[in-house]
Amino acid sequence: MESQQVACKDLQKASITKTLDYLKRSPYQTIIYGVSGSVATIKAFDIITELLKLNLNVVFVSTQKSQHFLDIENYSITQIIKENLPDLERPQEKPVLVQFKDEDEWLWSSMQDHVLHIELRRVATIILIAPLSANTLAKLANGLCDNLLTCVARCWDVKSGVNPFIVAPAMNTLMYEHPITDSQLSFINEKLNIKVLPTAFKKLACGDEGYGALIDTQSIIKAVSESMKKDINSQMMMEPSE
Amino acid sequence: MESQQVACKDLQKASITKTLDYLKRSPYQTIIYGVSGSVATIKAFDIITELLKLNLNVVFVSTQKSQHFLDIENYSITQIIKENLPDLERPQEKPVLVQFKDEDEWLWSSMQDHVLHIELRRVATIILIAPLSANTLAKLANGLCDNLLTCVARCWDVKSGVNPFIVAPAMNTLMYEHPITDSQLSFINEKLNIKVLPTAFKKLACGDEGYGALIDTQSIIKAVSESMKKDINSQMMMEPSE
Amino acid sequence: MESQQVACKDLQKASITKTLDYLKRSPYQTIIYGVSGSVATIKAFDIITELLKLNLNVVFVSTQKSQHFLDIENYSITQIIKENLPDLERPQEKPVLVQFKDEDEWLWSSMQDHVLHIELRRVATIILIAPLSANTLAKLANGLCDNLLTCVARCWDVKSGVNPFIVAPAMNTLMYEHPITDSQLSFINEKLNIKVLPTAFKKLACGDEGYGALIDTQSIIKAVSESMKKDINSQMMMEPSE
Ligand SMILES: Cc1cc2nc3c(=O)[nH]c(=O)nc-3n(C[C@H](O)[C@H](O)[C@H](O)COP(=O)(O)O)c2cc1C
Ligand SMILES: Cc1cc2nc3c(=O)[nH]c(=O)nc-3n(C[C@H](O)[C@H](O)[C@H](O)COP(=O)(O)O)c2cc1C
Ligand SMILES: Cc1cc2nc3c(=O)[nH]c(=O)nc-3n(C[C@H](O)[C@H](O)[C@H](O)COP(=O)(O)O)c2cc1C
Repeated sequence: MESQQVACKDLQKASITKTLDYLKRSPYQTIIYGVSGSVATIKAFDIITELLKLNLNVVFVSTQKSQHFLDIENYSITQIIKENLPDLERPQEKPVLVQFKDEDEWLWSSMQDHVLHIELRRVATIILIAPLSANTLAKLANGLCDNLLTCVARCWDVKSGVNPFIVAPAMNTLMYEHPITDSQLSFINEKLNIKVLPTAFKKLACGDEGYGALIDTQSIIKAVSESMKKDINSQMMMEPSE
Repeated sequence: MESQQVACKDLQKASITKTLDYLKRSPYQTIIYGVSGSVATIKAFDIITELLKLNLNVVFVSTQKSQHFLDIENYSITQIIKENLPDLERPQEKPVLVQFKDEDEWLWSSMQDHVLHIELRRVATIILIAPLSANTLAKLANGLCDNLLTCVARCWDVKSGVNPFIVAPAMNTLMYEHPITDSQLSFINEKLNIKVLPTAFKKLACGDEGYGALIDTQSIIKAVSESMKKDINSQMMMEPSE
Repeated sequence: MESQQVACKDLQKASITKTLDYLKRSPYQTIIYGVSGSVATIKAFDIITELLKLNLNVVFVSTQKSQHFLDIENYSITQIIKENLPDLERPQEKPVLVQFKDEDEWLWSSMQDHVLHIELRRVATIILIAPLSANTLAKLANGLCDNLLTCVARCWDVKSGVNPFIVAPAMNTLMYEHPITDSQLSFINEKLNIKVLPTAFKKLACGDEGYGALIDTQSIIKAVSESMKKDINSQMMMEPSE
């Protein structure tokens, strides 16, 4: 029994290593796409679809609480992801979608093993969290990192600003209007160079009206694609002139 | 089996909806009464009894850790609450005591469902946390909201100040005297308009002497009833003069 | 069955009380030695060995996540600790190593019982966290205390500065260079009087080069022993001159 468990863990570890290697060799850039515990997580699949169209490999990372919103009402994002698992044995003509979970971090068992959040930070050139919940916002602003998503965020190179970090908050209006929201959004923007997208004004599921809703998918995608261009431009500007 | 589970969840959801509807229609004001992980949680039943006497419906919300103190030494607050469950089918002549738990939030399974912490915030006109633990204080001050109580707090309308938010800290003297206590109590008072009750000087269970103990029940109740009056006064002052 | 569980709990409680009493009567000073979720936790046993040589009783406290690093590759710190459990029935000629876990706190079941983190704070004259993870650093800086280690830290007498609090951070370079690291290390040093040891420059397990690695054991031990001397000096200075 126990040896079967070890064998299973070894298989899982091998599969993580293979995925990371694949992303490193891929001709496409890689984005970490994170979701946190907001109802708006149900938009994840739309956003993933558009990110793939931007020719980005997508690494999907979800907080425990957000997973509650991945599989509802005959609509299962988890299922769709499972059915579209790429075959990493052969070079892909298109960017791929892969998923890592909190448990994957803790397969680590020897000094030779990868530290997953560090490898993801190294493989990816951009990170997007949409929706960003009030709670995960608080973790970002306070340096807390107790799951895979916040660990990747905690080691993101926000100083140089070369690799964009974009968030799209989503909260009930009543939560959004709390004074802590504004002060923490300003803090992560000004001190941590995180690009904060505005929220949308609308009637939320619960009946309230006001700001706080996740901005539309097209605006999120536009922000990602512009930040990628800026990135390329700034790299070009740093090339020696001839 | 699985369909039984679904049926059970549906029943639980229906019961939450019924309770919320009852509170909305009730002629009595509703208070959210929260407890966090301090020994002083054993005072919860005394406090509940006095709140009911103020003609307030009481919604009892406890953090996971505080539940350790609800059932000790042949004294079970949980049991008392169970035995006094109101019959919500008929209008009550008195205010009622109901309880919500972290799990209740996560019965949510479709866009038509209530978001519990939002509904509670909407139904209640006052919130009291007594005892307030050091840890929950830190969550309030830092915007963290990973359970039902801190989620209700995170969406409380602290800006307008119309609906009072009162806390009564309780800590061992050694914890209370740590510099973070004072700075976070000041912060939630000055920036979040939360009324912070003083602690009592006494010999604690552990043998230490000093400040930090939960203030007596009568002082807590007095603070609640005064904040309600102020509320009514300020509403009256806003009426157009004739 | 249930009565067996109660009996077992009573035994565990009795054993905690015995350990605390032993430490109170011991001629040796006691250090709380904490580890948090960094790979560098594998150095714990070396550090424990050296602390014992300083004639300190060692109370070992580990966060949940750090326990993943205690038992790896045929090397089990937990096992070593188990095999060296002191016989607390008789006075020891040497300082002892004992361990407390998060669960031990929650054996509490009556007002007569000890509150473990308070008792540890009372018994010990010095606290060391090495390695200090980014996440536990954030908890210290923000007053969060949701496990035994951070509860002891939250009630440490940092104001008087009589009992030293020393931390040795350890992070991947990418995490260490994040702006939040520096601001939180400065905060705990300047506002909470916590002595922060520098990190070492080296090639980390993951391949990165830079600062962030746990400083060598000898430097940690030197800091502990110097802070003890300073402590004794300042106590001597406070004696009335004759
Ligand atoms: C049905 C439901 C909907 C929620 N929607 C939101 C939301 O839109 N935004 C938000 O910030 N929190 C929302 N919350 C609260 C978060 O899920 C809660 O704070 C959680 O702890 C967040 O965890 P995470 O940040 O680790 O994902 C919701 C909770 C429930 C039960
Ligand atoms: C027996 C016992 C008594 C405690 N008493 C207090 C207390 O009075 N005040 C406090 O702030 N923390 C106290 N704590 C520590 C908290 O329970 C701990 O920080 C916990 O994580 C708080 O969680 P919560 O804020 O989510 O309820 C106590 C812990 C134990 C085991
Ligand atoms: C294999 C592995 C190695 C890690 N190494 C470190 C590290 O050296 N420093 C650090 O701050 N976090 C490190 N982390 C991340 C922490 O373990 C994570 O933030 C955890 O939630 C910390 O919990 P704690 O502070 O309660 O111990 C590592 C994680 C994994 C999976």
